[in-house]
Amino acid sequence: MKPVIGSVSLLFYFVKSCRASGADIALDAKATLLHRIDSLNLLIYTCLLTLTVLTIWVFKHRRVSWLHETGLAVIYGLIVGAIIRYAGSTNQVTYLDAHPEPNAKYNLSVPPDIVRFHFPDKIQISSGEIPVPNKTYAYSFRGEIVNLEQNEIDLKATFDPEIFFNIILPPIIFHAGYCLKRKYFFRNLGAILTFAMVGTALSALVIGSLMYGCVQLMPASLAASFTFLDTLYFGALISPTDPLTVLAIFSQLKVDVNLYAMIFGESVLNDAVALVLSGAIQNYEKRYSTDGGFEITAFLAAIGDFIGIFSLSLLVGAFIGCLTALISKFTHVRDWPLLESALFVLMSYAAFLIAEVCELTGVVAVLFCGICQAHYTYNNLSSDSRNRTKQLFELLNFLAENFIFTYIGVSMFTFPKHHFDPWFIIAGFLTSTLGRAINIYPLSFLLNLGRKPPIPMNFQHMLFFSGLRGAMSFALAIRNTVSEARQAMLTTTSLVVIATVVLQGGAASHALAYLRIPTGQGQSDESEALPYRDVRSNGRMVVKWGKDENGVIMPWQLNSYEDTPRGSGDGGGEKARLARLWGAIDSKLLKPLLTHARPPLTETLPAFLRPLARLLTTTRQYTQGDNGLRRTDSDSDLCIDEPQPVPTTIDPQQLWPGLVDTRISVEGITGSNI
Amino acid sequence: MKPVIGSVSLLFYFVKSCRASGADIALDAKATLLHRIDSLNLLIYTCLLTLTVLTIWVFKHRRVSWLHETGLAVIYGLIVGAIIRYAGSTNQVTYLDAHPEPNAKYNLSVPPDIVRFHFPDKIQISSGEIPVPNKTYAYSFRGEIVNLEQNEIDLKATFDPEIFFNIILPPIIFHAGYCLKRKYFFRNLGAILTFAMVGTALSALVIGSLMYGCVQLMPASLAASFTFLDTLYFGALISPTDPLTVLAIFSQLKVDVNLYAMIFGESVLNDAVALVLSGAIQNYEKRYSTDGGFEITAFLAAIGDFIGIFSLSLLVGAFIGCLTALISKFTHVRDWPLLESALFVLMSYAAFLIAEVCELTGVVAVLFCGICQAHYTYNNLSSDSRNRTKQLFELLNFLAENFIFTYIGVSMFTFPKHHFDPWFIIAGFLTSTLGRAINIYPLSFLLNLGRKPPIPMNFQHMLFFSGLRGAMSFALAIRNTVSEARQAMLTTTSLVVIATVVLQGGAASHALAYLRIPTGQGQSDESEALPYRDVRSNGRMVVKWGKDENGVIMPWQLNSYEDTPRGSGDGGGEKARLARLWGAIDSKLLKPLLTHARPPLTETLPAFLRPLARLLTTTRQYTQGDNGLRRTDSDSDLCIDEPQPVPTTIDPQQLWPGLVDTRISVEGITGSNI
Repeated sequence: MKPVIGSVSLLFYFVKSCRASGADIALDAKATLLHRIDSLNLLIYTCLLTLTVLTIWVFKHRRVSWLHETGLAVIYGLIVGAIIRYAGSTNQVTYLDAHPEPNAKYNLSVPPDIVRFHFPDKIQISSGEIPVPNKTYAYSFRGEIVNLEQNEIDLKATFDPEIFFNIILPPIIFHAGYCLKRKYFFRNLGAILTFAMVGTALSALVIGSLMYGCVQLMPASLAASFTFLDTLYFGALISPTDPLTVLAIFSQLKVDVNLYAMIFGESVLNDAVALVLSGAIQNYEKRYSTDGGFEITAFLAAIGDFIGIFSLSLLVGAFIGCLTALISKFTHVRDWPLLESALFVLMSYAAFLIAEVCELTGVVAVLFCGICQAHYTYNNLSSDSRNRTKQLFELLNFLAENFIFTYIGVSMFTFPKHHFDPWFIIAGFLTSTLGRAINIYPLSFLLNLGRKPPIPMNFQHMLFFSGLRGAMSFALAIRNTVSEARQAMLTTTSLVVIATVVLQGGAASHALAYLRIPTGQGQSDESEALPYRDVRSNGRMVVKWGKDENGVIMPWQLNSYEDTPRGSGDGGGEKARLARLWGAIDSKLLKPLLTHARPPLTETLPAFLRPLARLLTTTRQYTQGDNGLRRTDSDSDLCIDEPQPVPTTIDPQQLWPGLVDTRISVEGITGSNI
Repeated sequence: MKPVIGSVSLLFYFVKSCRASGADIALDAKATLLHRIDSLNLLIYTCLLTLTVLTIWVFKHRRVSWLHETGLAVIYGLIVGAIIRYAGSTNQVTYLDAHPEPNAKYNLSVPPDIVRFHFPDKIQISSGEIPVPNKTYAYSFRGEIVNLEQNEIDLKATFDPEIFFNIILPPIIFHAGYCLKRKYFFRNLGAILTFAMVGTALSALVIGSLMYGCVQLMPASLAASFTFLDTLYFGALISPTDPLTVLAIFSQLKVDVNLYAMIFGESVLNDAVALVLSGAIQNYEKRYSTDGGFEITAFLAAIGDFIGIFSLSLLVGAFIGCLTALISKFTHVRDWPLLESALFVLMSYAAFLIAEVCELTGVVAVLFCGICQAHYTYNNLSSDSRNRTKQLFELLNFLAENFIFTYIGVSMFTFPKHHFDPWFIIAGFLTSTLGRAINIYPLSFLLNLGRKPPIPMNFQHMLFFSGLRGAMSFALAIRNTVSEARQAMLTTTSLVVIATVVLQGGAASHALAYLRIPTGQGQSDESEALPYRDVRSNGRMVVKWGKDENGVIMPWQLNSYEDTPRGSGDGGGEKARLARLWGAIDSKLLKPLLTHARPPLTETLPAFLRPLARLLTTTRQYTQGDNGLRRTDSDSDLCIDEPQPVPTTIDPQQLWPGLVDTRISVEGITGSNI
């Protein structure tokens, strides 16, 4: 299923030379050869990744910052791909035409799963060979052959695209959710949701429309092969951003955390949005007219699809995350960290699989599962399991990400279904840049109308600049390469990904300097006066930012919002009310229910639910003193870090009647008993 | 590629009902359905594993020790397998007979890789349907259909057996090598090698011969389908042991470490031996007469195969392990633990792949790679990477192992190629028990002739009792299920594995008590007088066992051997000399070359090699004081543990001239500089 290095064809001759000793042995040898080719392909990628790791070490050692490991992986991939392509002939796949048995009665509208192929069927008496007896072989369905003249069949040329969706993407997305810097994420939730939801849809629509216009101006052969839905699909797949390189530089240079959170949060969510969006477009295509025409009911159904699938997937993921939290809270599985870690991994993968089985989007489920695992389950885990799961997903994410980028490079040369069309490529580059601009600038303007601390212009430029394309775009593009249109899309997407990752990624630190975005601030050291934060933090901070480690940040932030004049924030007020409600539910119901956090449910629930509350409260929750009322879960770093003792106390009784008056005082040390 | 739950057939009807809206949509729906079935199958196994984890937690919590997680996984697998089998009809695979195009000219002796299938080929005008246009589909080669009447085709019934060898087994085997308790392993190397090498071959031969005899007594239909090579192959695949359950109880009850080391060491090595052995038998079969006759030259060639493949694979693994050690020593990649861990994982997997590409045995390579990684690389790693790699492979091993045992249970009911033959099954149980006995008792007798502390009778019984069969046997059995003979072997192997894991595993603690094997001793607390150790430790211990943590244990042991009267140990003397040589090479050349251990090469190499030695010595090696002359690598626990400061010093200058007089004194604390 993978590309093949030229030298292997030598081995193939060896197999052919074995012919005389019988077809059975030749078959066995063929199976061995295929296994070796598979191993060789995996070995190529393993070596490429090893090389990337070593080179990136050298770069880090010598403080070279203009090339991120993903950019390096792409470049190494391109080099090796070119070598594989031009070093020798690729392995020849033998093929033969076949027809159903003339007399067979079949009643199938769909081609069969298995073809029982009778071969050689006619006895060959050529050049004195021994006649080969007729045998029956099983052949399994691969797909439709559209272009009969095109002899390249991609059997051994690529990984199955499904591998990306089922094996490579889930750990990446889960890791993103698990490591989401929730505090800053929630603080910028409005902007993140606007950019990710509205922005991605807008960008997809704009790119799709512009591309359709461009395609109409192109030679007729190309124009005919693209429908509006095709270009819209292209818009959806090219819209999600993957600003790995930029973020790596951000955390290296300690750039403003809010900017970081906006870019990271948006890129996490827009992957999910783009995936569901492209699924909805495909469903539309599948269910309704295929002439590219527009049907209003179908369009509304597609929007319904989008919302339904997204929210159901979200619920599945969140449900599994909460279930894991409950299991880890109410059992003592934490006494056996290995079992606990295994449970954690299995449940998280189950979230993905359940969503896929229910025809939802597994990637969305696994993202929100990751967020819930970090928000709730992580607090119940033993320190061994915290470390283990964090490190495990960090490593998986690293390997998966670099594998994808290596593969993007290699497949540029070895994937047989590329279609280079210069006009489409140029149009793709232009429209994807435009799409990003339309995502950022108008929405920032709208956001700034309601947003108390507006997003300054240089931050908007940086948001625009961070529109690198990555793994999700590529995975969506390579999923379906049947038609010429889709092949042109794949080529353009690959090139956009390569160009943005290598060039934009390389220029990120210069862009930061050019845009005069302040760097070098401690991420959790908020006592320094930052220009951006000064703009909006007039009286907002009740407790220092760096200290509020206990995950429930909503009430604090909202409380602080109360301190600022609310005149201009009409939309902000609405948002704040919703967020406040969520904060209350989270800190009074979900956290006490799902974790060992204080205050226990017995204190937060109304009196008539006390018996139930008592059932759902652990002795550990009772015995924890009010001084150390919550188990901490740290948000202060990019990844979840080990909690440090946090001297904060929230009086739960005061939290219940009126949220606005929440007083936060700094008193005790978490974890100490009364 | 996996078994299918009955309810899915309902979905299938849905697909069929879509027919009217066109073959394209039906095809898309089919692809979606297949994807969902795949996800559903993975979900079944994920849920089974989750259930196993939770139940085993309950068992551990309530101190139930008669059922190990692997036994539980098998039982859950059996239950779910039965439900899948009897709950509903399995998914129907559609198939059709096909012939090559009548006019096609082909010159192939081997069936093609791809069949281009023209379908429907004739326009059907039945029941007023719209005629379906003729299209071409690609079908890829799956294998030969031997029995045309047998309609079950295993396309969706199982995982590809190759998955076991390429994905599931490598982490298990690597983990075994990485966690090998090297000190006790080397101390009992003679016995372990004898049992694993000679014993497994002997057992395979005995089981093969006895089975051949049994088969001849059976009904003619069965007798005819088995050649001697078939039964020999059965002998090879049923010989390796997998005493997971027993070892779990051992470490729980703190049984004698030497017994533990013998059982664990043997089971690690005999997996590798059996794999290479079965490969050699298959090669023999492939290359020479297939009538089951015996050719002396072919037999010798098979033995040559065995030795050559085993030792070359060992070298590949060891080479990659040492290469990783060199890289981690001479680069500062340890400053970035994530890169370091990624490098470690990639290099280790590369060892497997390189061996597979070279037509060697990847499992053997990965085993010895693991041993080298633990012996050398581990000492160079940062503490973060030590933890991470240890925990990663522990988790992977846990999941992979339990997955295999779950699959053994499920496949008992869902795998279509089982062949239940009561006589063969009974014969299989009897001969495999006999084979284990012939492995242990005569070889123990021979070993005791030359072995200074003989293996007592109750230890021999326990060794015999630990002959559980496991993952490797099953993986070998399911690899090839074309003929009826192979199918009968698979069934028998599955049953032997299930019976031994559940019954023998459950009875292990009773067996320990019945055989009066002392338990409850601290594994690294050697000051207690153990009956067995007393027998052989007359004056041997210069330093307490629990303290010699620095990995280079040979000279100490051998040094101690010198203290014991050598009269009866003629074979032992020879072994000791070889082992002493290896110990010298290891401590004077390999450890200083590959790790930061002291003494540096500048002190151990002869004078004329000093310039080279200086190149290969790091400043860290120089600056480390003589007091803390070696970085410790702990062996004292089952898994490698974090090193503790070890107060031992070996005077390197005295080590060089004469090994026998090595004096070991307890002075400083490792790691402190002068």
